[in-house]
Amino acid sequence: MTASATIEPLPVPVASLEAAVHIGTKEFIKGFIAGQVTLGVLIFFLVKMFFFRSGEETRIELAMKRNRRKLYEPKIPIPISPHAIESQILSKTSYDVQQHPVETCDWLNVLFAQTITKYRNDSGFNNRIVHVLDEVLNGHTKPGFLGPIHITDFSLGDEFPIIKGVKIRFAELSANLRTEIEFEFDDQVTLGVETQVLVNWPKPCIAALPVALTLSVVKFSGTLAIEFVTHPETPESYLSISILDNFLLDFEVKSLLGHRTKVKDLPKLASLITSKIRSVFVDEIVWPSFKRCNIPMFWGDAREDAVREELEDLVEEIKHA
Amino acid sequence: MTASATIEPLPVPVASLEAAVHIGTKEFIKGFIAGQVTLGVLIFFLVKMFFFRSGEETRIELAMKRNRRKLYEPKIPIPISPHAIESQILSKTSYDVQQHPVETCDWLNVLFAQTITKYRNDSGFNNRIVHVLDEVLNGHTKPGFLGPIHITDFSLGDEFPIIKGVKIRFAELSANLRTEIEFEFDDQVTLGVETQVLVNWPKPCIAALPVALTLSVVKFSGTLAIEFVTHPETPESYLSISILDNFLLDFEVKSLLGHRTKVKDLPKLASLITSKIRSVFVDEIVWPSFKRCNIPMFWGDAREDAVREELEDLVEEIKHA
Repeated sequence: MTASATIEPLPVPVASLEAAVHIGTKEFIKGFIAGQVTLGVLIFFLVKMFFFRSGEETRIELAMKRNRRKLYEPKIPIPISPHAIESQILSKTSYDVQQHPVETCDWLNVLFAQTITKYRNDSGFNNRIVHVLDEVLNGHTKPGFLGPIHITDFSLGDEFPIIKGVKIRFAELSANLRTEIEFEFDDQVTLGVETQVLVNWPKPCIAALPVALTLSVVKFSGTLAIEFVTHPETPESYLSISILDNFLLDFEVKSLLGHRTKVKDLPKLASLITSKIRSVFVDEIVWPSFKRCNIPMFWGDAREDAVREELEDLVEEIKHA
Repeated sequence: MTASATIEPLPVPVASLEAAVHIGTKEFIKGFIAGQVTLGVLIFFLVKMFFFRSGEETRIELAMKRNRRKLYEPKIPIPISPHAIESQILSKTSYDVQQHPVETCDWLNVLFAQTITKYRNDSGFNNRIVHVLDEVLNGHTKPGFLGPIHITDFSLGDEFPIIKGVKIRFAELSANLRTEIEFEFDDQVTLGVETQVLVNWPKPCIAALPVALTLSVVKFSGTLAIEFVTHPETPESYLSISILDNFLLDFEVKSLLGHRTKVKDLPKLASLITSKIRSVFVDEIVWPSFKRCNIPMFWGDAREDAVREELEDLVEEIKHA
């Protein structure tokens, strides 16, 4: 070594120098990888130790969970007295039943008007109403002394129902909250029919009295009351929809009887028809009668499948977002 | 006869007097009936002549009508330009888009709050949501590196969405009317899940990282835009429901990772999750994306039968009123 140090250094051949560098680089890479692997393994075991559950435990846990995957049961607030629920709702929505002014709802009028216009301009819709009316009038409810009933006029009118004001009150008896919607509907919703009263004695169809009737609703105003009915003892609740008894319902009846000589607009017939329709209307929907409207439960089977698919799509999208 | 007249009048026997009266009465009744019948027949023929159609004519007419009972075809208003429809609606509902003030809708808040309370207090409803969520999360959308997902928390919150104000404007591009509903919803709608990230290399389930995540929507406010979309060339129209892009949607993400040593509330994870959900939300419903909501046609077959039955009941009731 010393001898070689004193002599003039031999020129190292280029090839062997390259080989040395090559060896050095290889060794460096080996060391680099070894260092990374040891540190990686160390960290892996540390992480596994501290954060992860071990394989054995995991397998046991997974098997256990798969076997008895218990569903989370949502906590339902303890039922409080129904009146308390109502006052809670009022305070949370900051609605003071005593002092809150009557609210207008012109935007809803516009929205309704748009929907109604759509139906009115839809010839398919009109045709199907006429079709159904025709079937019903000529169906098994038609008495034997009437000939076929022919619809001669049908119109859903030109105007729109107008909501004048909305107010929430407590209903008198039940202490439920009642939404009172004052509305007005001045229009010509018209149904015209033509038929004949048959004389079936002494033999069938011996003579017939042609009758043409046109019935229009010209004015309908009043207060629509929507009450959210809850029963303290049963879980069921529903919307009761009725018209308060200060309503106004005006009909116009045009009648034309007779074959050659015609009798027009018999006042007796008009009052008979309107009083019949009015009494059915009162029986059906004027308070204390009401239409019961169940709150949809969302969970028909078809509906549930739809919700499931919707959610699955959503999860997919979140995954790919 | 004259001889008998001079002699003292024989006392008429009571029996024969009675017989005479009897005969008289009988004759009167006969005459009465005859008189009525002749007048009745006369009037009948007069009425039949003037008012009724004759038997022959009636039969021909009836047969004709039965054979080709043509349905009345409702007249549909001539379609005018869509913008004209809109301005007609606005004038009929007296809504001035420029000057109408923003309307409050507190009564609707109360009505919504009542409905939401019903759902929240309904354990069946909550259980089914959890059930569906569980199925979806553990269904085929779950990637292989996740263990079973277990729902640990689910809450629909305590507060209610509040509508601040409603205004109708013309939409910028389409010139349709757009109802803009400003709303605010500060609540804790929460979903908590627990799962484990599985390490499947070098062999399956060698280790698992338990992950617990709780995601809450704490603040959601913005403007819901409901646009009634009509196309001038096609008859179809629908409601487009979207959220305008000035919305605010804040999440709270609580996370807990690890088995023995636990890492709590990783900010990176929280921002990753919220940004993913937010981007899906923006893609799905924020304007110009929208949810299309078809206006129900009423005339599904089941629906049509229901309407028909309802109408038949009504006709029956009117008959018996």
